[in-house]
Amino acid sequence: MSIKFASRINDLKPSGIRLINEKALKLERQGKKVYHFELGRPDFDTPDYIKKACIASIENGDVYYTSNFGKQDLRQEIADYLSTKKNIPAAADNILVTVGLAEAIFDVFTVLLEKGDEILVPDPVWMNYINIPKLLGATPVTYNLKEENDYQPDIEEIEKKITIRTKAIVIVSPHNPTGSMLREENVRKIAELVRKYDLVVIDDEVYERLTYSEERHISIASLPEMFERTVTLNGFSKAYSMTGWRIGYVAASSEWIQALNKIHQINTTSATSFVQTAAIVALRDEDTEVEDMRLEYQKRRDFVYERINQIQGISCSKPQGAFYSFINIKELKVSAEEFVHYLLDNYGIALVPGTVFGDNGNGYIRMSFANSLEEIQAGLDLLEKAVKNLVVRN
Amino acid sequence: MSIKFASRINDLKPSGIRLINEKALKLERQGKKVYHFELGRPDFDTPDYIKKACIASIENGDVYYTSNFGKQDLRQEIADYLSTKKNIPAAADNILVTVGLAEAIFDVFTVLLEKGDEILVPDPVWMNYINIPKLLGATPVTYNLKEENDYQPDIEEIEKKITIRTKAIVIVSPHNPTGSMLREENVRKIAELVRKYDLVVIDDEVYERLTYSEERHISIASLPEMFERTVTLNGFSKAYSMTGWRIGYVAASSEWIQALNKIHQINTTSATSFVQTAAIVALRDEDTEVEDMRLEYQKRRDFVYERINQIQGISCSKPQGAFYSFINIKELKVSAEEFVHYLLDNYGIALVPGTVFGDNGNGYIRMSFANSLEEIQAGLDLLEKAVKNLVVRN
Repeated sequence: MSIKFASRINDLKPSGIRLINEKALKLERQGKKVYHFELGRPDFDTPDYIKKACIASIENGDVYYTSNFGKQDLRQEIADYLSTKKNIPAAADNILVTVGLAEAIFDVFTVLLEKGDEILVPDPVWMNYINIPKLLGATPVTYNLKEENDYQPDIEEIEKKITIRTKAIVIVSPHNPTGSMLREENVRKIAELVRKYDLVVIDDEVYERLTYSEERHISIASLPEMFERTVTLNGFSKAYSMTGWRIGYVAASSEWIQALNKIHQINTTSATSFVQTAAIVALRDEDTEVEDMRLEYQKRRDFVYERINQIQGISCSKPQGAFYSFINIKELKVSAEEFVHYLLDNYGIALVPGTVFGDNGNGYIRMSFANSLEEIQAGLDLLEKAVKNLVVRN
Repeated sequence: MSIKFASRINDLKPSGIRLINEKALKLERQGKKVYHFELGRPDFDTPDYIKKACIASIENGDVYYTSNFGKQDLRQEIADYLSTKKNIPAAADNILVTVGLAEAIFDVFTVLLEKGDEILVPDPVWMNYINIPKLLGATPVTYNLKEENDYQPDIEEIEKKITIRTKAIVIVSPHNPTGSMLREENVRKIAELVRKYDLVVIDDEVYERLTYSEERHISIASLPEMFERTVTLNGFSKAYSMTGWRIGYVAASSEWIQALNKIHQINTTSATSFVQTAAIVALRDEDTEVEDMRLEYQKRRDFVYERINQIQGISCSKPQGAFYSFINIKELKVSAEEFVHYLLDNYGIALVPGTVFGDNGNGYIRMSFANSLEEIQAGLDLLEKAVKNLVVRN
């Protein structure tokens, strides 16, 4: 028999990041040493105070369906975090707990977008922001983040790209894959556009706790009249090293939350009960482990930035947040895809071609420094050797 | 500002089961005693051997992203379970681990259905099987499960309803909300139709371990030439009392699994890492807790069946599996919605109107006996009183 799948999945490509990861794991199973810089997967164990809260919750029999919206205590704790730390005027009713940031994005687009709609997304960007709108028949319209502009958006360019079909604009700050952070003036200018054209802004803040610059992270929902126009997305994976736990949230108007819950309810029902309990405790920052991780990332960031710029033929900007270095390889005159396979096959270094994130990723490779300083040091020594040998070969 | 959500969500109603549950919880917060018979939520704590495996996994630092497909060990364990216990010839590559049965259904329909497609679904049925096809622009075409036919499908009726637009047929056995089980002859006849018309069968087996009759449960994927035509869905929520854990799976051809993973990857990424580890152990049935729960449900089933049929004016068939009694209230001359609100408001008994499951639910209410025998006894005494007082009022 031949299965005729829905046409919507024909154009949907499997994640380019995961393809590299799977190749890396295969090499590892063959006994090769691999340096993993391909995934945005913190290498730290989850902080102990969070693990303990989860274990206690399991022991206490916290094993049943929760409210689809998420546990009320967790919704309240998230609302408190957002209002105290991010100046976002959220109450518990403004929160929907999801199965990670991923489900939050999926549900938000499913509620918002239909055939013919346009949505403004940065280029480069994590490909879910391109693939999910396409899946729903909507058109992602990209705005540029270029290295020569410090990966800041060109507000005039964005305004020119707004049409009557534009429903929303996506912003990601700190930004994957470039490690940049939106400057406050640009956050304000985007807010102006959103108000002027009556748009929705979808604000991915999953890296907001992982910043290394003096400039502070600004939540667009904290600006005047912006809370009702913003869907703020966040998750526990990155800052708390909880990638496997699968928990995140949406903060938005209660009209949004009610609509989102209709999809969330039939999609996943709810996030794992005892993981929700652990997330409450995570937000209370009972000890310094979360801040310790951030400091360690900052150390790695400093090392990576210096070391890469010492290598003849490649360079990178200084990451302001997240844990990625977007390495410029244009001088090497080799495609990003070709280069990453050359690196993985010959040197066991796993990185992701920038093209996975869009056209502006041409000439770039993404290195995740969510790995130990030792691995990073050894990996970058190998990268230097690989670049030298490539130059010789050319 | 006014948000214009996608039209697909306009017709999507929040779960009728959850609405009753929320009302019940609200009454409880007001200090009223409520008897919960509305949710398919086992009242047992998760078996200790499963909880211990989960805790050990958390302690061991099993906190990272897993493969999107699910941990290889779990996929293998599920495949072994299906081939040994259900005669389904599945290998590890035929398994996708999901965030509960819910996500499995959502992903399967998203991969399969598009505008104009038809899908055959039973009436009554859990409303996700109606709502998700509609969300995707497809048309659910219902086939009848009637009490007078022991809730068995009429195969001729099904065949008449097959058109060139029919892509798949959904079967659920044991069945929610009626507690019926497909007879082997009907499973075979449905398989014949599926082969004859080159359809896909979506087989929801989430209650397959919870059966109480001598007839054994037959997996349609175990019949000749049927594995490649079947998408078998299951989850750990019911038999293992793991509703809050959010873990389930799809078993199908590897072509299906590859297609499904493209959606799963951008929807939820994966199920929780340490929950996956616990699921491996769950399947090994290290002690008798799972069977003990089944025996307890059987005891409750027997009690509920006898007790309800003692009450003048209402009746029910004997449930063969799952943990629901579908109570016939036609003699009472009251709508199911009206009756359940009467019961909850005046007697604190929470049940679900049959109409939540489709037109054939008219004149029925669903009682979940996933609650203790004590609560069931007290609840049914109250139900008897409520019926008597209603009859007097009428």
